Parts: sequence; C-alpha cells; structure tokens
Amino acid sequence: MASEGRNGPIRHGGDLGEAARLFPQAPEPWIDLSTGINPIPYPWPALEASAFTRLPAASDLASLEDVAARAYGARPEQVVAAPGTQALIDLVPRLRPPGRVAVVGPTYAEHAAAWARAGHAVATVPTLTTQADIVVVVNPNNPDGRIMARRDLAAAAAGLAGRGGWLVVDEAFADLEPVESLCAAPPPGCLVLRSFGKTYGLAGLRLGFAVAGEPLIGTLRRALGPWAVSGPAIAVGRRALADEAWRREAAVGRGRDAARLDALIEAAGGRIVGGTRLFRTADFPDGPGLFGRLGRAGLFVRRFEAAPARLRLGLPPDAAAWSRLAAVLGEP
Amino acid sequence: MASEGRNGPIRHGGDLGEAARLFPQAPEPWIDLSTGINPIPYPWPALEASAFTRLPAASDLASLEDVAARAYGARPEQVVAAPGTQALIDLVPRLRPPGRVAVVGPTYAEHAAAWARAGHAVATVPTLTTQADIVVVVNPNNPDGRIMARRDLAAAAAGLAGRGGWLVVDEAFADLEPVESLCAAPPPGCLVLRSFGKTYGLAGLRLGFAVAGEPLIGTLRRALGPWAVSGPAIAVGRRALADEAWRREAAVGRGRDAARLDALIEAAGGRIVGGTRLFRTADFPDGPGLFGRLGRAGLFVRRFEAAPARLRLGLPPDAAAWSRLAAVLGEP
Repeated sequence: MASEGRNGPIRHGGDLGEAARLFPQAPEPWIDLSTGINPIPYPWPALEASAFTRLPAASDLASLEDVAARAYGARPEQVVAAPGTQALIDLVPRLRPPGRVAVVGPTYAEHAAAWARAGHAVATVPTLTTQADIVVVVNPNNPDGRIMARRDLAAAAAGLAGRGGWLVVDEAFADLEPVESLCAAPPPGCLVLRSFGKTYGLAGLRLGFAVAGEPLIGTLRRALGPWAVSGPAIAVGRRALADEAWRREAAVGRGRDAARLDALIEAAGGRIVGGTRLFRTADFPDGPGLFGRLGRAGLFVRRFEAAPARLRLGLPPDAAAWSRLAAVLGEP
Repeated sequence: MASEGRNGPIRHGGDLGEAARLFPQAPEPWIDLSTGINPIPYPWPALEASAFTRLPAASDLASLEDVAARAYGARPEQVVAAPGTQALIDLVPRLRPPGRVAVVGPTYAEHAAAWARAGHAVATVPTLTTQADIVVVVNPNNPDGRIMARRDLAAAAAGLAGRGGWLVVDEAFADLEPVESLCAAPPPGCLVLRSFGKTYGLAGLRLGFAVAGEPLIGTLRRALGPWAVSGPAIAVGRRALADEAWRREAAVGRGRDAARLDALIEAAGGRIVGGTRLFRTADFPDGPGLFGRLGRAGLFVRRFEAAPARLRLGLPPDAAAWSRLAAVLGEP
C-alpha cells in the first residue's frame, strides 16, 4: 500500500497488488516476504459475539493496557492502546505546533512523512542528535537492525526535554530482540511506540501501544478518544500479550529462521547488512536482477529506491516457501 | 465509558461498569438500553485467517469504500473509511488551526469536547447558524431526533465555505431514517460522517466513514494513514453494507420496535420528545425515580444531567427484555 509522503507515495511492504502489477505472470498464490510480520501467527482464540456487537468497555481497554504493561515491563498508567502503531505515527505530529524534526535514518519512511504532513520541517540525520525540537529513532532500526543504547537515548531525551522537545523511540521490532527498551522508565519528553501485529503475526487486527510519562501519555489518551481500539483487537491482544511462553518460543523459533535465511543469502553472494529476527536486509551483487527473479517466481521482497543493491527479506512461512526461496537464491 | 470533555468526563451510553456501580444489587446480566446500537446485529460472516494476519491491502480498503459509497448514495472517491466515527470526530478538529466552532445542540457531547481539546473556541447554539468558522450538526439529532432539511444545510455550508469554513454533518443515525442525506453531493466545505456500528449492531468492530469533496476528503485520507481500518472491519463491512435487503428489513423491524417502545413509554406517562428507529427519548413525570427503578431491575438507560426528567431508551433485544421493561414501566 502507498501513502502520501512529501515527495509522492511511500512504497511499503505487504502490497501484493503491486507484486501482481510488476509480475503478472508469476505463479500464485504469492509468497509475501516483503514485510517484517511474523509468518507464524499467534493462535488467536475464537471471539465472543460481544467483541463484535458491544462498544469496547473502559474496563476491557484498561485490562488490555495492564497486560501490555506487563509484557513491555512498563507501568500500566504509562501505556495507551491505539489501533496500530501507524495511527500513533500519524497522530503524534498533530499534538504540537510545527517545529524542527530530525529523523535518524534511513528508516521506516512513515515517520518523516507524518511529521511533514502535519507541517513540521523534517530532516533525516545519520546519527542521534539533539539539534531539533523532535528526534525520531527506530530501535532496532528498520531495515538495518541497528540498535541504540538506552544510555544514549536517555541522554538525548534529557537534552530535548530541557527545551520542551520530544524523543520518539519506535520499538516496533523490539519484542524479540536484545534491545534495551525505554518502556520501563520512559524519560520525560520521551514517547515509546510498540507494535502488536508484527511480533504476533496479526497485522490485520490493528493494535499498537504508546508508552510515556505524564503529561504526554494523558494527551495521547485524550486525543485517541474513548473507543479507538476494536473489540476483536482487545480480546486477542489480551490473550496474546499475556502468553509469555509463546513469546519466548517465537524468539527462539524466529531466531533460528533468521539464521537459516542469513545462510541462504550469504550462499547467494549477499552481504548481510543487518535486520531483526523477523527480517534480514542484505546487499546483493545484482539486487534489481534478484528482485526480478524472485518476483517472477512468485516471491515478493522489499527493495529500496535509494539503494538498488539492497533487498529486505521476511521469513518464509512454511517448508514449501523455504524451498522456493532456496531454489531462486541458488540459481547461478 | 467516560472521556474527557471541557468540564470533566463525558458520560456515554453503553458503560455497564457505571451501571454496576450505581446498582450493585441489580440482577445480572444487564439489559443495556443506554445506547442507540441496533440490538439485532447483522449476522456477521466467519472471518478468513487473512483478515487477522495480513496488513489490510489497499484494494480491500478501496472495495469497502466502493460498497459504502453505494450504500450511502455517494461517489466512491468522496468516501474514506475510518476506525469508527469517533476517530473522525477526534481527528477533524486537528486538521485546521483553532477557530470558532458552533455546535447545534444539545447533541452528542463528543463533538464539542473534541473541538475544545484541539484548542478551538466552542459554543453550543440552539439553531443552525453561519456565525462561526465551523458549524457541527447531528442529523437526525441525538437524542431528540430533530431532522434538518438538506436545503438549509446546503445554504449554511455555502455561507461557511465562502469564508473557508466547514459544516460537519454527523449522519450517525441516518441509515434507517427518512433523512435527506448530504452524501450524494456534499457541498464544498461540508464533511458528512456515517456510522457503521449503530445500524448493523456491530459497534465493537470500529468502522465509520467520512464523505466529502476535495480537498477535504484527500486531507482526511492522508491524515488517517494507510492501515487505519482493521481486517475484520473491512471483511464484515464489505458484506454488510452490500446487503440492501437486510438494511430494508432492519428499517421495518426497528421501526416496529420503536413504535412499540413509544406505546410503553406513553402508557407509563412519558411524553415522547423524539428519537430515531434505534432509540426513543422522553420526558417522564419522575425521570430520576424511573431511572432508579429501571436500574434496580437490571435495565440501564441513558439520563441527562441538564434535563433530569429526560431518559433515552434503546430497543430491547428480545422478548424477555421487552417483558422486563414493560413490567417496570407498568409499575404504579
């Protein structure tokens, strides 16, 4: 799917419509390796009728936020649920007057686009800075997996907060990684974002969380309004986020998958740039050629306009997909 | 559920937590007559796994908006889907600099609260006006069911648009009513809101729509971002909004229910103020006393701080609920 950035539409993973347009002769169904969504979803429970029929109750939402707080090591009053992290990325820039925004990148393109849409002046910077009103960091970063230390982030937050600025730390891919999360004690002026759909393989539910101290978290809670999150998302989220055993097993299993993917990539001449347990990013001798060979074989991966050699590959969902990927990567 | 208005929390229907606090001895389960949600929900289909696991595709969202456009008599390019009308009520005030807002009321309290939260100066006015930058009208109105003529609304929209103003028309309860909708040809500067959950009895799904011309609809589409609506909402909404026969039968059936409810209310000495086919509002000789008698019997209805005699009753869901309501209303 494309959304509007400053310079036209942003290309995202997960748009099989684009895959079909680019490769109309590819065998179907597509194997979608263009996202960082866990291909082994949490086994979501059957939903009670009330999840569909009733307005979500305040107590149900509070209980979801309690469970999320435990999962993220945060305090429940510092957690607010939203209909997907993207909704927060779109909302937060509208909560303060236009200012100067530094996005540490290259990174997930929606951050810069959302701040620009709301009238802010946005620059992409290569390293952490405090020379702005708002600084945005994705940790671990997408697509290269770079991890920043909590100490450095806390120092940046303190520098920004002293001048009324904010540090936004998008921990969308932190659940399964050895990242020092800021959720346990978000510094003043620091807003942490957590994604539900990627780790649990349930991106269609639209569920994400913000973690912050006051007054930021109160402002967000009021801006999101009383019924932002759907009944199905509350019901499934409560169950999944409470399931620590599943999350531990997912970290082990996807770690194994990521290592297997690295081996395939390296055997095909790719150089691993980085990634997380849910995607691997690599530079290839002929990135555009490989993108085309994969596409014609029905495998859709993520490419990058500014780095033609670079491809990002998600994890194959099953043995057949692994075989098809291995076959294309193994072609001479 | 309560959300924060200018003067403290707004009381909403549908909060059975509040019912249980007020009437701890009431028999359970509660019969919730405090909302205007259709108690006979659309028979939602079983959901495919992809509704949960995949990021909603651009083509699925477009197809939902096409179906909604047909249901509302609108043009597809003038329709945008959102995670509930409330999300739009919260978003729209952040899309323009603070100005003067006139809400024609009393009406649904979240409109005034959302504009105030975004920094606008809000006044409640008794009749349609153009003496403001933004005018908000609920049509038919909640809770009194007052209907405004399209001609008058179009004239107001023209007056506002000439000065860069907006007319927001919330048609949340229009689906089953003889209302002249503005969806077919929204005038410049006019934004129409439509609710899915109320008519279809599926408020937990969080689905609503905005209908407007350019540039307003484009601004909204960009501000909502690429994945605002969940997979389950898209799947169920597409099916339900395409089902014209169900909607016609719902209008007939709920019209019959509303007439039956009016008869019970009048027999109990209530004077019907107005309403829609999904709720009836009436003044009673002893409103607070009746609210208490209903509550102690496990029937939760909507009351109004500013009008103690007034109660709003939703439609009972089944024969047992009708009997229990009739018994309390029939008490001497």
